[in-house]
Amino acid sequence: MLDIHEECGVFGLWSPKTYDLARTVYYGLYSLQHRGQESCGIIVNDCGVFTGHKDLGEVGDVFKASVLDAIGQGQIAVGHVRYGTTGATDRKNAQPMVVNHVKGSMAVAHNGNLVNSYDLRTELELAGSIFHTTSDTEVIAYLITRHRLTTASIEEAVSETMKEIRGAYSLVIMSPAKLIAARDPFGFRPLCYGRQTDGTYVVASESCALDAVSAKFIRDVEPGEIVVFDRDGGRSIRTHCGEEARRICIFEYIYFARPDSVIDGVSVHASRVQAGRILAQDHPADGDVVVGVPDSGLDAALGFAEESGIPCAMGFVKNKYIGRTFIAPGQSQRENLVHIKLNVIAEAVRGKRVILIDDSVVRGTTSKKIVEKLRAAGALEVHLRLTAPPFIAPCYYGVDVPDAGSLIAAGHETEEICRYIGCDTVGFYDPAHLGALLLHGGQSLCTFCSACFGGPYPAGQPAHTGKYRFEQKLPD
Amino acid sequence: MLDIHEECGVFGLWSPKTYDLARTVYYGLYSLQHRGQESCGIIVNDCGVFTGHKDLGEVGDVFKASVLDAIGQGQIAVGHVRYGTTGATDRKNAQPMVVNHVKGSMAVAHNGNLVNSYDLRTELELAGSIFHTTSDTEVIAYLITRHRLTTASIEEAVSETMKEIRGAYSLVIMSPAKLIAARDPFGFRPLCYGRQTDGTYVVASESCALDAVSAKFIRDVEPGEIVVFDRDGGRSIRTHCGEEARRICIFEYIYFARPDSVIDGVSVHASRVQAGRILAQDHPADGDVVVGVPDSGLDAALGFAEESGIPCAMGFVKNKYIGRTFIAPGQSQRENLVHIKLNVIAEAVRGKRVILIDDSVVRGTTSKKIVEKLRAAGALEVHLRLTAPPFIAPCYYGVDVPDAGSLIAAGHETEEICRYIGCDTVGFYDPAHLGALLLHGGQSLCTFCSACFGGPYPAGQPAHTGKYRFEQKLPD
Amino acid sequence: MLDIHEECGVFGLWSPKTYDLARTVYYGLYSLQHRGQESCGIIVNDCGVFTGHKDLGEVGDVFKASVLDAIGQGQIAVGHVRYGTTGATDRKNAQPMVVNHVKGSMAVAHNGNLVNSYDLRTELELAGSIFHTTSDTEVIAYLITRHRLTTASIEEAVSETMKEIRGAYSLVIMSPAKLIAARDPFGFRPLCYGRQTDGTYVVASESCALDAVSAKFIRDVEPGEIVVFDRDGGRSIRTHCGEEARRICIFEYIYFARPDSVIDGVSVHASRVQAGRILAQDHPADGDVVVGVPDSGLDAALGFAEESGIPCAMGFVKNKYIGRTFIAPGQSQRENLVHIKLNVIAEAVRGKRVILIDDSVVRGTTSKKIVEKLRAAGALEVHLRLTAPPFIAPCYYGVDVPDAGSLIAAGHETEEICRYIGCDTVGFYDPAHLGALLLHGGQSLCTFCSACFGGPYPAGQPAHTGKYRFEQKLPD
Amino acid sequence: MLDIHEECGVFGLWSPKTYDLARTVYYGLYSLQHRGQESCGIIVNDCGVFTGHKDLGEVGDVFKASVLDAIGQGQIAVGHVRYGTTGATDRKNAQPMVVNHVKGSMAVAHNGNLVNSYDLRTELELAGSIFHTTSDTEVIAYLITRHRLTTASIEEAVSETMKEIRGAYSLVIMSPAKLIAARDPFGFRPLCYGRQTDGTYVVASESCALDAVSAKFIRDVEPGEIVVFDRDGGRSIRTHCGEEARRICIFEYIYFARPDSVIDGVSVHASRVQAGRILAQDHPADGDVVVGVPDSGLDAALGFAEESGIPCAMGFVKNKYIGRTFIAPGQSQRENLVHIKLNVIAEAVRGKRVILIDDSVVRGTTSKKIVEKLRAAGALEVHLRLTAPPFIAPCYYGVDVPDAGSLIAAGHETEEICRYIGCDTVGFYDPAHLGALLLHGGQSLCTFCSACFGGPYPAGQPAHTGKYRFEQKLPD
Repeated sequence: MLDIHEECGVFGLWSPKTYDLARTVYYGLYSLQHRGQESCGIIVNDCGVFTGHKDLGEVGDVFKASVLDAIGQGQIAVGHVRYGTTGATDRKNAQPMVVNHVKGSMAVAHNGNLVNSYDLRTELELAGSIFHTTSDTEVIAYLITRHRLTTASIEEAVSETMKEIRGAYSLVIMSPAKLIAARDPFGFRPLCYGRQTDGTYVVASESCALDAVSAKFIRDVEPGEIVVFDRDGGRSIRTHCGEEARRICIFEYIYFARPDSVIDGVSVHASRVQAGRILAQDHPADGDVVVGVPDSGLDAALGFAEESGIPCAMGFVKNKYIGRTFIAPGQSQRENLVHIKLNVIAEAVRGKRVILIDDSVVRGTTSKKIVEKLRAAGALEVHLRLTAPPFIAPCYYGVDVPDAGSLIAAGHETEEICRYIGCDTVGFYDPAHLGALLLHGGQSLCTFCSACFGGPYPAGQPAHTGKYRFEQKLPD
Repeated sequence: MLDIHEECGVFGLWSPKTYDLARTVYYGLYSLQHRGQESCGIIVNDCGVFTGHKDLGEVGDVFKASVLDAIGQGQIAVGHVRYGTTGATDRKNAQPMVVNHVKGSMAVAHNGNLVNSYDLRTELELAGSIFHTTSDTEVIAYLITRHRLTTASIEEAVSETMKEIRGAYSLVIMSPAKLIAARDPFGFRPLCYGRQTDGTYVVASESCALDAVSAKFIRDVEPGEIVVFDRDGGRSIRTHCGEEARRICIFEYIYFARPDSVIDGVSVHASRVQAGRILAQDHPADGDVVVGVPDSGLDAALGFAEESGIPCAMGFVKNKYIGRTFIAPGQSQRENLVHIKLNVIAEAVRGKRVILIDDSVVRGTTSKKIVEKLRAAGALEVHLRLTAPPFIAPCYYGVDVPDAGSLIAAGHETEEICRYIGCDTVGFYDPAHLGALLLHGGQSLCTFCSACFGGPYPAGQPAHTGKYRFEQKLPD
Repeated sequence: MLDIHEECGVFGLWSPKTYDLARTVYYGLYSLQHRGQESCGIIVNDCGVFTGHKDLGEVGDVFKASVLDAIGQGQIAVGHVRYGTTGATDRKNAQPMVVNHVKGSMAVAHNGNLVNSYDLRTELELAGSIFHTTSDTEVIAYLITRHRLTTASIEEAVSETMKEIRGAYSLVIMSPAKLIAARDPFGFRPLCYGRQTDGTYVVASESCALDAVSAKFIRDVEPGEIVVFDRDGGRSIRTHCGEEARRICIFEYIYFARPDSVIDGVSVHASRVQAGRILAQDHPADGDVVVGVPDSGLDAALGFAEESGIPCAMGFVKNKYIGRTFIAPGQSQRENLVHIKLNVIAEAVRGKRVILIDDSVVRGTTSKKIVEKLRAAGALEVHLRLTAPPFIAPCYYGVDVPDAGSLIAAGHETEEICRYIGCDTVGFYDPAHLGALLLHGGQSLCTFCSACFGGPYPAGQPAHTGKYRFEQKLPD
Repeated sequence: MLDIHEECGVFGLWSPKTYDLARTVYYGLYSLQHRGQESCGIIVNDCGVFTGHKDLGEVGDVFKASVLDAIGQGQIAVGHVRYGTTGATDRKNAQPMVVNHVKGSMAVAHNGNLVNSYDLRTELELAGSIFHTTSDTEVIAYLITRHRLTTASIEEAVSETMKEIRGAYSLVIMSPAKLIAARDPFGFRPLCYGRQTDGTYVVASESCALDAVSAKFIRDVEPGEIVVFDRDGGRSIRTHCGEEARRICIFEYIYFARPDSVIDGVSVHASRVQAGRILAQDHPADGDVVVGVPDSGLDAALGFAEESGIPCAMGFVKNKYIGRTFIAPGQSQRENLVHIKLNVIAEAVRGKRVILIDDSVVRGTTSKKIVEKLRAAGALEVHLRLTAPPFIAPCYYGVDVPDAGSLIAAGHETEEICRYIGCDTVGFYDPAHLGALLLHGGQSLCTFCSACFGGPYPAGQPAHTGKYRFEQKLPD
């Protein structure tokens, strides 16, 4: 039960007809809500005139029927859900970003993180640019605008921009007449597209959003590829393809993505079931039942059960009403958060040796309480198996991993962790076996980024990670 | 994936010390939210002075930190979550109901439905009573008040009132100095109590709410029993016990209650797993995977898999962000509600013969779409198995079953239903085997009410079901 | 610039046709908003079925277009605005109160205060009644309901009730088929009625509300009179008329009522102009300009100017945007509330001897600051003249006068007050001349209540002013 | 009772100490609320880090205590209230605008309208600039940023920018260490500054806002002047002073500004009283009473009364509760808006010949209803006198005058207007006497702009008034 956040989900539509497509984006964003709950936005393009709405909050809070109605009709649209890192919870950073430039309006929705945005921004500022936000997205918008002065099309300007920006980016860009999807040459973050029966093209971070709007999945946007949708249909620009080795974020499979999504040809669900199988091989345990921690541990529990022959059980109920409005208990209350969020089904674990499948251990405090609850409900033994290797390094490509100081795995041996959590044994997923999570037809389809688990940083690290000058206090 | 509603959940606290117990009630109500999402309320008693708040909306919407803070401290409290039948969505019907009478204030929280409230109310009106609401609860409050004029204690007044009211009621009543729990002699609705380590007594509709506030379960309130909590501890009044045969609502086990609750000694989870087992015996099917429809079909799928030896699979992802603010798609959208709420994990069902476990079929439209989605994802066959017998009759004891006209099972044979839904075979749970759901130590512990499945009405039917005169328009 | 509050304004409509009359009530309440800003409500009667809405807040906050639309159509309606005394700011006390009883529904809107409600309520409680609120209105509703059991009509029940209740009450009552207006035999609070051109009867606390809805004023409801509006037109029941000498609250003319209202035949505006004239006679001053403190001092300033021959000037601007949402300055701010609410027009007072006309002095702090501001703007002298006599006693008939402890006039001589406020001279209105405020055709039309200025209490004082038992904490 | 709107009010603070100055800005904006009710904002600078809030709505709606608290402490701040022209009611256009550029952050608050912003913006776009809003303010921010690359200070960049922009602008600009006030060389819009006793400098559109925060008025910012406040105190840059002849908007005195403000040395109140006097000379009338239409006609009525010797009367009550939430009556209601907003005090006009003083006639419909109401209340004659000359031309300098098509004065002779409105005589203020409104010590102090009354356009007219390309729909 991780508390780690992806930064964004993107969505876009290009339709041959005019209708109230904000509602379609709305349903698409509902399906991507797990990728960001802090702010969201929808921008609709009616023959070049952009209208829309964005605000802090989840999709259901920000978009009431009256708001959707007010957005009106159009032919192209983009949407975005966002999780912002602490301190930047600001309405002005909500996306998609709309800017007006020499060629009319442009909307940009971005998932990922650049490693050279500080330098690019400084360069732009020194040339007289002004910035309204602190996001990488505004840097990207500026670069496209600059290149647009000298290129014949927006897609060329995007291609030129891709020569300058470095890092993780899955972009959906809307110009007065086009919808453009672009993915960085490493392909860190997912991006795919499909088509509805009436000819509307749909672009989304995950295939589950295509399903939600009844669009048939066509294919993933490839690393480095730019796909353009307009009156002439869809077409691909592959100039940047193959520039880099494919490096999909392995954590998309382990934790972020929805299990019903298929990313780069690999089912997220299948990948998690496979993680359970590998765990059963690498870290077997004598147990009576296999119990997954909802939601992300449930798929892996099936795999562990299958491989080990130990039956799967439903050991927990998760309170599905706890959302952003929930007030966490303070010190004066004896109950604690885990009690309210997650309850043990005593009947399922009483008198049993439990093999507990979870995704990861961050600080260790939640796992400790879950183990306590299992024992209190009568579990005889608890063997914790984790579908992720230990987190030991920061992510610079769009995931908000806590500081090493709060990562229990960064400073402790497995035995120490086991003792702290209070379980009988602990087994982490072996980093050497990560490739097995991406099997397709028996072989591992693609290479991946596992920098947070100690792997290399494919796109390098940022030269400057400091604050911008307007975020620093002057000497008084 | 039923759309049938229970009417209420109740919660109460009696504490030997003074503290901000509204927060504890808040967590308790969060755990009972599945019993009613339309309105909720908390009333706190500080040495006889009652303060609180109630409004339309879910617990997280109605109770912000500032509201909880404003309620302040106390020693006794009651809480309520409510689902109101259509047309009565009115703030004034939110509970707990607070009234002031000759002995000070009284708060009443009620789960259930009386069959003779029309007559009792008319009688009271003819004696000069005025009513602010349309709820049974106000009738109960009046009767207690009247009897309180001639009885030595509030609990005696409650006992006298129980002689007059007929139907389903699990009550939590707060007087200036006492917390009282009372359950009708049939025991239609659940009610139990427990204790926190500091001596605070907790009463709740379901044991999962005791777990949420770290209270140790003591026992169920028995049918006909009145339990009183005050400075002298807890004590039981059993005058009405044994008046009637125990008749717990079987649908609490099949659908309403949370699987981590234990009601009248039987684990709800175990009961559902057992339903799956019995289905596998009564309606076996040749299949490759057993897939439960979340959330209520998941437990039964485990039982079916276990009994049949066919492996369980995770076939669906339910969108957990869809709540009360969600705007359902209109006719102009091609997507439909089921697509957005529930997506198939194609990987898990492709090329397979699926045994689909759901709780019930009401109108049949949802099941039809689920089956379509499974087939579109590549399922070869779909065999639907339902953990409830066909709904054929209305409930007068607190469940809002749709009119017979919209119940597909009320007018069609199983084969017709199968054809309409589009699956290969359909198997309903056999009403004759309902007793098997309430096993404890190998034998069926208690008798039950199954009126909605064609069984008898233990407490009779209401003589008047019409509108009150103030709800009817006069001839113009 | 007084900070003293009336408790209510009432409004009612009876129409021969069916339409969305909630909107008409809405406009009526806007015109009575000065009589109460804490809560408001509208109840509409459609052939006996009552719907409506009430909440804390001003009319414009509580009634949005969607709320008015939801209330729907009808033939009869009542509305209410309320100022509640501190501590009872509770949504449940908002009016009109709707109750259901043996004859259907009844809505009651009340302006005033009873002196024997404590006793009446206790009596009702001892007979088994329950109370949902702490207001006198519920007592009145109960009594009418009780009498309705034995009377042939609601108006007879109202007449019987008037035999029991004592104090100030202007009531608007709605039954399934009738609208009833009733005023206590002393006539403490105003109440009048008129008619729209289509035959709709309108009842209101003040005639300004008739003007707002284009109803032609017919006449005041007389002290002790009951007026009934139904299909047979309007008719009067005068059983209680003449029981007591007329005692209109003199403070309605001095401060509460809107200057465009005419109450009991006397124009409020004319009464205030007259107050200025009398002040000029009783407390003349050598001055260069007469300046009224907005809003209530402006009319009297005209009278003082006219009588004295000294020209009137516009000395202040009042900030018209300051409403309920305004956040008053704390201690850390140098500005103070009077600065922001009221600014001096320096041009009008610089180098002048100012005769300052205000309604009253309560604590003295506001007057002190106003005088300081005038001097800072260059006024040479400031002579304060007040249109009210000194407040020295509490009101039991519906006005929330502060405790004697905070009334500067209750414990200090005029000279001390003058010194405290910092003006050159102070002149209070002479209580002996109050009759001159109610001139009509040269003679004082009616007798009045001036208990708060030291006059007798016409309806006596309450025997019990204490809290009800449910508002008192029990010994712990 | 005009319905014409100014576009903005600006406010700024520079303090030698650190405190929660958002509250001071809040009170200042309350005093400028009459200059714009559509959106507002406050930005606070804490040693170079800018935080703040802005949104659609009035000051009291947008700034709750929690919002002000969240803004926190600082040393410099700017605030803004805005009225936006129809169609641009968009949260993103709310001011102050905050941008980040090469020198840190900058906030800009602007009152006025440029005539060459279309051209300047196009030029910037062709150089690769992107725009987030449609406001002139962003153009100004860009130009300052560009010049800042080559100037030694922000004030020099402002001075360079003033060489390029043309039109009306009163600016308050905040840099990391400075507060800057700048006024266009014509001085179309007011701007002044003062100082609090602790050394805090305060800049505001009108002097009434200095009064509200207890700042002592120092002087008006002169046309073309730039005033800089920082650690070295305040200093003036007068490079652009004298470039153009002073052209204050005469309508500020007639209608917009608050009567307690003093602009360019002339009291607004005195100016209005003077307008009444001149009207009495130019358009005398035989009448019994002079009645001003609140609020803006009241000052002039005093002047007319004084000059004519005819007594002034209080003829109207304006409903002070009608604000932005008020729902105007639809066609189905018999009442109309003027009835509810403004009621006649019949006592004051009955049987009298009324001289009615109002500010202007726009469409004529409101005046027509006011005259009807006076006659219905018994006025024998109504002589309308208007303190503004007829509106006949659009304003390009910041006032939203309706199209000529809806201006009754633009197409009709005075006699026709008189007949339409239904009064006995009408007299407009003579444009030739406008100079008399700006008397100071007996002589007219300054020249003014009266383009809307047919005078010349001092800063010319815009070359392009069309929509930007991103606001136009493309051919489909």
